[in-house]
This record gives sequence, C-alpha cells and structure tokens, in this order.
Amino acid sequence: MTNCKITILPANKRVTVPKGTVLLQAIQQAGVHIESACGGQGVCGQCRVKIEEGRYNTETTTQLSGQECAQGMCLACLTLVEGDLTVSIPRLADWEKAQILEGEGGVTLELGHWQINPALKKVHLKLPPPSLDDNLSDYERLRRELHRRGFPDRHLHCELPFLQKLGQVARQHHWEVTVTLIQSDTVVDLIEIEGGDVSQHRFGLAIDVGTTSVVVHLVDLVTGKTIDVASSYNAQAACGDDVITRIIYSQKADGLIRLQKLVIDTINRLIEEVSSKHRIDFQRIDSIVAAGNTTMTQLLLGIDPRYLRQDPYIPTANSFPMIRAAEVGLRVNSHASIYCMPCVSSYVGGDITAGVLRSEIYKQEPLTMFIDIGTNGEIVLGNKDWLVAASCSAGPAFEGGGVKCGMRATSGAIEQVRIDAATFEPTVRVIGQGKPVGICGSGIIDGLAQMLMAGIINRKGKIYTDLGHERIRVADGIPEYVLIWAKDSATETDIVLNEVDIDNVMRAKGAIYAGFRTLLIEVGLNFDVVERFLIAGGLGNFLNIESAVAIGLLPDIPQERFKYIGNSSVIGAYLALVSAELREESERIANSMTNMELSVSPAFMEEYLSALFLPHTDLSAFPSMREKLEQEYS
Amino acid sequence: MTNCKITILPANKRVTVPKGTVLLQAIQQAGVHIESACGGQGVCGQCRVKIEEGRYNTETTTQLSGQECAQGMCLACLTLVEGDLTVSIPRLADWEKAQILEGEGGVTLELGHWQINPALKKVHLKLPPPSLDDNLSDYERLRRELHRRGFPDRHLHCELPFLQKLGQVARQHHWEVTVTLIQSDTVVDLIEIEGGDVSQHRFGLAIDVGTTSVVVHLVDLVTGKTIDVASSYNAQAACGDDVITRIIYSQKADGLIRLQKLVIDTINRLIEEVSSKHRIDFQRIDSIVAAGNTTMTQLLLGIDPRYLRQDPYIPTANSFPMIRAAEVGLRVNSHASIYCMPCVSSYVGGDITAGVLRSEIYKQEPLTMFIDIGTNGEIVLGNKDWLVAASCSAGPAFEGGGVKCGMRATSGAIEQVRIDAATFEPTVRVIGQGKPVGICGSGIIDGLAQMLMAGIINRKGKIYTDLGHERIRVADGIPEYVLIWAKDSATETDIVLNEVDIDNVMRAKGAIYAGFRTLLIEVGLNFDVVERFLIAGGLGNFLNIESAVAIGLLPDIPQERFKYIGNSSVIGAYLALVSAELREESERIANSMTNMELSVSPAFMEEYLSALFLPHTDLSAFPSMREKLEQEYS
Repeated sequence: MTNCKITILPANKRVTVPKGTVLLQAIQQAGVHIESACGGQGVCGQCRVKIEEGRYNTETTTQLSGQECAQGMCLACLTLVEGDLTVSIPRLADWEKAQILEGEGGVTLELGHWQINPALKKVHLKLPPPSLDDNLSDYERLRRELHRRGFPDRHLHCELPFLQKLGQVARQHHWEVTVTLIQSDTVVDLIEIEGGDVSQHRFGLAIDVGTTSVVVHLVDLVTGKTIDVASSYNAQAACGDDVITRIIYSQKADGLIRLQKLVIDTINRLIEEVSSKHRIDFQRIDSIVAAGNTTMTQLLLGIDPRYLRQDPYIPTANSFPMIRAAEVGLRVNSHASIYCMPCVSSYVGGDITAGVLRSEIYKQEPLTMFIDIGTNGEIVLGNKDWLVAASCSAGPAFEGGGVKCGMRATSGAIEQVRIDAATFEPTVRVIGQGKPVGICGSGIIDGLAQMLMAGIINRKGKIYTDLGHERIRVADGIPEYVLIWAKDSATETDIVLNEVDIDNVMRAKGAIYAGFRTLLIEVGLNFDVVERFLIAGGLGNFLNIESAVAIGLLPDIPQERFKYIGNSSVIGAYLALVSAELREESERIANSMTNMELSVSPAFMEEYLSALFLPHTDLSAFPSMREKLEQEYS
Repeated sequence: MTNCKITILPANKRVTVPKGTVLLQAIQQAGVHIESACGGQGVCGQCRVKIEEGRYNTETTTQLSGQECAQGMCLACLTLVEGDLTVSIPRLADWEKAQILEGEGGVTLELGHWQINPALKKVHLKLPPPSLDDNLSDYERLRRELHRRGFPDRHLHCELPFLQKLGQVARQHHWEVTVTLIQSDTVVDLIEIEGGDVSQHRFGLAIDVGTTSVVVHLVDLVTGKTIDVASSYNAQAACGDDVITRIIYSQKADGLIRLQKLVIDTINRLIEEVSSKHRIDFQRIDSIVAAGNTTMTQLLLGIDPRYLRQDPYIPTANSFPMIRAAEVGLRVNSHASIYCMPCVSSYVGGDITAGVLRSEIYKQEPLTMFIDIGTNGEIVLGNKDWLVAASCSAGPAFEGGGVKCGMRATSGAIEQVRIDAATFEPTVRVIGQGKPVGICGSGIIDGLAQMLMAGIINRKGKIYTDLGHERIRVADGIPEYVLIWAKDSATETDIVLNEVDIDNVMRAKGAIYAGFRTLLIEVGLNFDVVERFLIAGGLGNFLNIESAVAIGLLPDIPQERFKYIGNSSVIGAYLALVSAELREESERIANSMTNMELSVSPAFMEEYLSALFLPHTDLSAFPSMREKLEQEYS
C-alpha cells in the first residue's frame, strides 16, 4: 500500500494517508476544519479545495464550473488521493481558529439575585482521630461528620474508588480532608476525597454544545464568576451541517463513536485552552453542565439518535442521569460529574430549557414568546402559568447554508447591508478586519429586506432583471445581485445574492413564521397578546429587527417588545452549574413544557404557504411594512 | 537472560522462568498450589519441595535436617532456579484440587420460612409503544411502567450504558423487555435491559471468602435453590497463612493488587466450575453476596488493609457500597452487583454478621454464644435484645499451622484419634481414602485430649518420656508421641505430636477460652447462663466436643447446649442473596453489635494465663473433667 503526503494550506498542516483515501477524510485527519454540510455526499459544495500540486482523481460536479475545475478546484469529498498533494482551502483563511462571537457584553456571567450554591460542593472537614473508645470505621467517621453538617446520613453514597483512597488520605493529612460531593434530590454522592483544605479550589464548566459551535465557560465555583470563555466550531460539522445529517452519519459503521469523539475532542481543546491560559489544573474541574439540543445531547452521551428522526420522534431520554467525565472521555477530573440540561422532546432540547431558565419567563407574568433561530427554529410560548414549546425546521439558510456566498457569523462575514434605493449601490459592514468573504445570516436578512425596499426584488422574491444596472445580472441562467465586486472581496470572486438564495431564505423564514403562527393558533391566541418577544442564539446577535420584520421572519409588532438575550443556552447551563436550586428548576421547567408537533397541525401548511411572500401574503398582518412598501412603490 | 524450564510433580505442570527466579514464585506462576504460611520469609517451612533433577541454589535453614538437604529437600522460598529443574511437592498429592469439606448435609440451601425476594429483580414489562399522542421518551415510558409496578419513581436511577442500550432493545423487541434492577433503601438502580421475557433466568452467587478457603454457591434466584457448590483454597495462601501475614504482604510493591487478583482468580475458577458444569451462561449471573472477615473483604475490594493491624485497629468501612462485578474483575455479567456482608470491626467481619443472620440469635430469646474458631476465634454473645462481639488471635494451630505434622481438614488428614490408655496404641480416622498425610485441627484436639486421658502428658502439656513405650520418644531434643509409623503414612515419615505442637495448641485454646471468659466478665455474666453454644466454621465439622472440653477449649457445660451450625458464613451470604429483607437485616445486625477489644481488657491476660493448663488452672470450672482425671490418676 503506497502512502501519500498531503500538505494543507494555508494552515500548512501535513498528514500521511494511504493512496486512494478520500481527500475530505485526509483533511479532517490532519485536524484542519473544513465545512461539509452534506456530510461528504458531494451535494453541498462546501468542501471545495484547490489542488496546488500533485496527482488526484475527482468526480465532476455541478457545484464547480469548467473553469474552476481547470484551475484545480474540486470537492474534497469527491476526490481520491493518488500521490503526494498540496491542497489549499481557499474559502476562509482563518477557519482554523474561527471566533464564535459572543452576544454577551463581557465574559463575566453573574448570578444576579440567586445565591451561589452549586450542586457540587467541596466540604472541608476536621475529623476526630479514631481511638479505642471512638473506633468507628473511617467511612462511618466521615458520615457522622457529614451528618453533623446537615447531609442526611441515609442519602450518603460513595463508590469503591472513594473507599480505596479514604484510609490513607485521612491519615496522611491527620484527619483533615476535603470531600467533594454532589447533592441531588435523593442522594448525596461522595465523589472525591483530598487531604487538607482545598474547598476554595473548585471549578466548573458551563458548555453550550451547539450543532454549529461549542462555547465553554470556565467558572470559579467559589465566587460564581466566569474566569474565561472559549468557543470553536463543533468538529462534528465535518460529518454534516445539521442534526439530520449528523443522525444519518451516526448510522454508518462507527459513526456514533466518531461523532461522540469529535464533540468531546472539541470540548477538550476548549478546556485545554481556558485552563492552561489561567494555569488551572484540569483536575480541579469537577462539575460540568452541558446544554445542547436533543441530538447533540444524545451524541455527547453516545446514545444512538436514530429514533429522533423516525416517526413518532421519540428521544431515548429527556432527563439524564448524572454521569462521570471519564465515561465520555472529557479531560477534567475523572470523577467530575456531567449534568445535561433536560430536554423536552426530540426537537426541543436542553438548550431551550436552559434558555427558558435564563429568560425567567417560567416565573413571570407577561405572556412571552422565546425564539432561538438556527437551522431549526425553536419556540417557547407562555408565562409563569403555562409553557408550550415547538420547533420547526428552517434549513441552514440563516447559518449561511444553501446560500451561494453564505457563511457563518465569523470574521469576514457581511453582517449588515444597506442598498441605496436610487443608485442600487450597497454599503456593507463586515465582521472583524479586512475584506468581506461572504454573507452571514443577519447580512442575508438585511440584504433581502434592502433589495425589497429598493425595488430590486418583488414580493415573490424575484429579481427585476430589467433594471439596467451592472449589479443586476443573470449568471448561468440565475438572476443575481452583486453585493461586492471581486476586486473588493477576500475570495477574489464576486459576492452575490441570487434568486436561488432568496428562495431558500424565503422558505426558511416562512417555516419559522408559520411556526410562530401555528403555535399561537393551537393555543387560541394571536401576536397582539404576546407582550415580549425574546430572541436567543447567534443569529440574534447581529440581527436587524426591522429587516427581519420586513421580510416577514418576525411579526410586525412594536419594536420595543423584541429583546435579544444572547446565548441563553450557555447562560442557562451556567445557572444550573452554580445553583443546585436552579438545576432542580431546570427539571421542573422541562417537565412543565408541553411539546407541540407543528408538523401534524392542520394549520401549519396553510400558514407556511401564506408566509412564502415578502413579508407575507396577508399584508394586513404587516401594517408598518404595508405603509413602507406603499411609499416605495408610490 | 537465560530461561529455565521447571517441571512440577506430581501435578506435572511446566513453567518457564528466567534464571535466578525464586522457586516459590515459579511454582505459583505455574498455578500449582503450595502452602506458604509466612509468605515466603523462610520461616514456616511449609513450602518444602524436593528437587528431583537440575541446578539450584538454596539457603540453609533450621526447618530441614542435614539428611533432608542431602536428599534434595529445600524450601522453595529460599531457593533460586539456576537451570532446568524437576521439582516434586511431597506433602500432599492432591493439593491441586483440595476438597474443602462442607458441614452441610447436602448442597441445597433452603430459605425456610422466609419469602424469596432477592434485592436483585428481573422485571418483565410490556410497554405501550410510543405514538404522537403518547410521546414520552423511552426512559420516561419505562419509568412510568415501573412506577405502576410499585417502584417509587423518584428512587429510580440508571447509568449511561443502560440508556445507550434502551432505545434499540425496546424497539427490536417490540417494547417487551426485562429490566434487571437492584432495590435498596433509597435507590432503585436499573442495571440491565434485555429484550423479551428473561425474568425466569437469573442466578446469583453466595460466596464465603475465607482466609484459608473459598466456597461458592450458585443459586437460582427464581426458586431460591442452590444449584451447586464449589470450593477451593484461597490462592492468597501463597502470600501468607493468616490475615496478619496477608496484611504485611499487601504492603509490598503491588502486594495489594496481587492479593486482590489472587482471590478474584480463585472465585473466577469456582464460578467457571459451577457454571460450566450446569451450562449456565456466566452472563446470567448478576447478583453476588460475599461474606468474609474484614481483611478478606477489604482485599476483595482492593482497599488497603494496613490500618486494620495498627492501633486503634480501624477498618476503612464496615458497610460497603454496592459495587459492580467489573470493578473487581469477577467473571459474571459486568453489571452484576456485589454486596459485601457488613463488618463490625477490624476483627469481627462480614462472615460473623452472616453467621449471626443465619443463627437467628438476633431475634431469639435464649442467651447464646456463637463462636467461629479458625486462625482467629470470633465470639458473639447475646440474644434478641443485645449482641456483643469480640475476637481473639488463636494462631494457626487449629488449621494445622505451627504443628509439625499439622494440615488442613482435607483428604488424608487424621480427624479423629483414640488412644488406648493401657497400651498407648492409637486408632485414627482419616478423611477420604488412603493413608494418613498429617493431622488436622479436630485430630489435634482429639490427640491432645486422648494423650491427657491416657496419661501420656500431664496437665502442663509435658510428655512423660519415662513411660518406656516405643511411641513415646525424644527426637532432636523434643519429646514426641508417634501417632502413625512411617510405613503406614502417605508421606513415608512418622506422623507425630510433639511438645512444641502441644504448647502451640495450648496457647491457641487458652486464647480462645480466655476470650469467652473475658467477654462474659465484661458483661457481668458467666457460662451458666449461656443457654446455647453455637459452633460455626470448618473446625466444628469434625470437632469432638468432649475432647474440646477435655483440653479446655470449650467450657464444661452440658453437651446438649452445643450445636454445630456449619459454614454459617456462606449460609448467611445465601440468605442475603435471596432476600432483600435479610440483606437489610444484616446491616441492622452489624450496626447493633457492640465490639469489645479483648486485648485492652484487664481481665484477658489473667484469664489467658489461667487457661494455659489442661483443661485449666481452675479445675472447679471443669467438674466433669476433674472427675475423669481423678478416675484416670486414681
């Protein structure tokens, strides 16, 4: 078997693979992040690379033009390695370490009016040494002391490794020890014993395990303060962009194991990053709370997610037992406990429970709609008396998927667009330094709204190709609007929005809006009575509310009712990390949420079809837009 | 490094070891059982072997005569392998598979008046399949059904591997499953899920983990019947004969790990024996109860026992958490739970708790003394209202240790001795077929009593060397009585009892009797009020009560008060295996027993010194013996 050396630019990483290896796998094996929304099916076109040098064998694809192929462009998933290769990944120079931007003002999360009282405790004990008169066994001596401290004796429980250490640690430290324990409803689990007083050294992690990105907060469990935050892409992205592709991937041989390993590796790298930066021994991290959607949670735990996408869409569990870090391979203290935020259903996960916890709608009077828009749109409606939840599949458009020049909200992404209605000339704002690379969700929404207002597209999303402007053209039979000329672009190609992109975005926004409407219809209400509209998640960060209303993604209600609440998933996880009460609250919240299957509601399809206009078929539901459109077209 | 081939006779086992290896290790490595009471210190003389052929290097020792050395005899622990060797182990031809004889009439244990209700249950469930209307998660669906069956929902708990299997098993078997669970006071632990109805296939093990021997009962948990019993030496014997030597051995590098492995290997061989014989898949064994003294229990669990022999003699724990078989490497279902019978103190262990459970003294009116005599003598005194426990170190005399021709109660052991007072000629009864090999505990007690009654020894244990009988002689300066001539012996050497042996036995019986007395003194009672005297353990099996009273091991009370109750350790373990209630009862028993440290009682030394006569300094305490002795000497 011949081996081939692959060099990957610009990261300049090297890897050796057998001849005949699929190039996508070689690149992943080298640890270089490459997008592959379709999981290597040759469909999404995201894994395009340029072969700078060497022998390869590739399939033709409609994703690439003849000219591109001639330049050595190919899809890594369709290319076999035939000899030593030098490959460059042209799209994003900084994919290697993409910055997931945080919605929060700073890195410090605060507990607010809650008392810090983590479920994980380190209890410092000075035990009376044994004597012939006081000859309790070591373990009973410890239990007696803990009982005195208010831990109910009959709930105390430990495992064998704890006992194996107990005798020696206690005597070596003259019966002064620190016991790490986790208190839950029915059990106090003694998980670690150390000599002396180390009760002031305890750290935890609040983790948002997103389909796209993973965010880790390192938290000092004594002060309750976040020490640092790190984030990165979820390395599972190499196996598919959304939960459905991941579930399909999990059914391959070793697919589940690989997906679990990829997300654990991602988290471990982030743990290493934050703990080494602050010189915190990873062994001192002994409590973890993870929030993710149901698929992400099951994959994290190595639980086969296949039934999530089979009618009637049943998760293995919504509430998970506390597990030990060693069981999944997280690089923290091996005894550390992992608590997963409880899920509600197959498509309303722990991230939403965390969001509801963070938003506090479960204990407030005003009727609130909570939304988290990504590949799926999850919606919670209710207040302190009742909560209903639903989800609808939006597709990847708001994450930049299915959009020719789409990308995630990272450096180089156009996140804001203004188009002069007179000249059709755009101005854009780009995340980070440098030239634009592509357009992220908020930019796409902005662009669409601006094209509508400028009269470049009609309410059906069709481009007026007869406007006689150089930016408005037809390429390969598809009408498009050029947002950035190649000379001003980091990719040296034109950045455009075309009719296919627009169609995808309209279907995405239509599904989300139909979700809002259907949920309201199911409970017999309408938008008027929704007093607050909380927007969570990455999209909300740069979202221009006016544009979102303009295209009919959000309802046309008074702007002051909208509020962006940041990455409420990780904040909720943080709350459950630092407060045992809020952890129990999470369980109550998840239990109390009624799940609605929108797809089986008769109203949904009708609402969806009505929403496939800009902003909507029924302009009376968008009075402010009606006014504007009338002005524009007057 | 040169390798040497070692052939071990009569087992005809072969092993290859590097030149310079200690022969004892080579023999152990070959899997051949060899006694080594001192743990390889060259002190006990038990590991004597004969080199039939080959080069070796040995140290001189007082344990062997010059003649023996000339014949190629040596101690394996003092001998280095210098080339290929053929070695024979002369003492016991059937050590390889020694039969530990059972005190019980048959192998079947019965539960008697208790209901069978094992802590481990297999619950067969037919779950309603999920639908859009009944869309609980798999785990909640299971919990709901278990809750209907009376298992409190808030107590239900499972671990990750359970969830990882749940979805697939349930669907593959159309929602008909069998759940294995363990119910304790505060938690119902779901440990396994299988498809279909396998609730009628569940097996458990009741294990007596003795210092000397290990007994395993394979039990059908549906019927409560013992299917078979197997027993063998505890392979730890290679590391020392008694708990003290084992504790010392455990402090060597890897000593603890090795001791744990040896006993686990012993148990695994017995499991293999009984399960393969009855074609029972070892995966179907999922509940184990082990009863052992405190040292054996800690070694089984890999808990450092060193503090057991350090003042103030504190065990790590008396009550142990339920552990999984996989944690210690027992070859049964890896999820199987192991429950260790709770201990009372460093020297009153789970075997005694099991014995008290079996004896039922904890719930009966009559004041009872329960004794288990081995290397240690453990004593429990009390009734349904109170229980006190104590232990005293007897030394290995009753197990055949420290006695020149002593051996355990296995095939070839003289277990009964009668000596004609007129002719001084003995008659003996031997265990099993064939010529005698040595004398076991009951034979030694019998021999001593008979020598006393026949006037061969005086009340100080000294042999009258002037009786002018060929069986009474002085060898190497030590007076001895020849019980079996070389021509009638399996070892082709004379089997004798000498004054050193007698001295050791007197000190052993003195310690035990002093223990009885001191315990009674501490609670302000005397033998007259002890209504029952229950004798447990191996020694009791062949023990002649009259002889035991004659030498002052047992008190001189009416014979009908004595009762032999067999291996109450394994019977108690069996009861805790088949009845959850009795398992909880065990915990209450262990908690309720007050431990007495006899060694710190001022009375003990005085009682001990008074007991160093045959039967006792104070003949008035032995009225029946006084009478007999007066007859003999009249």
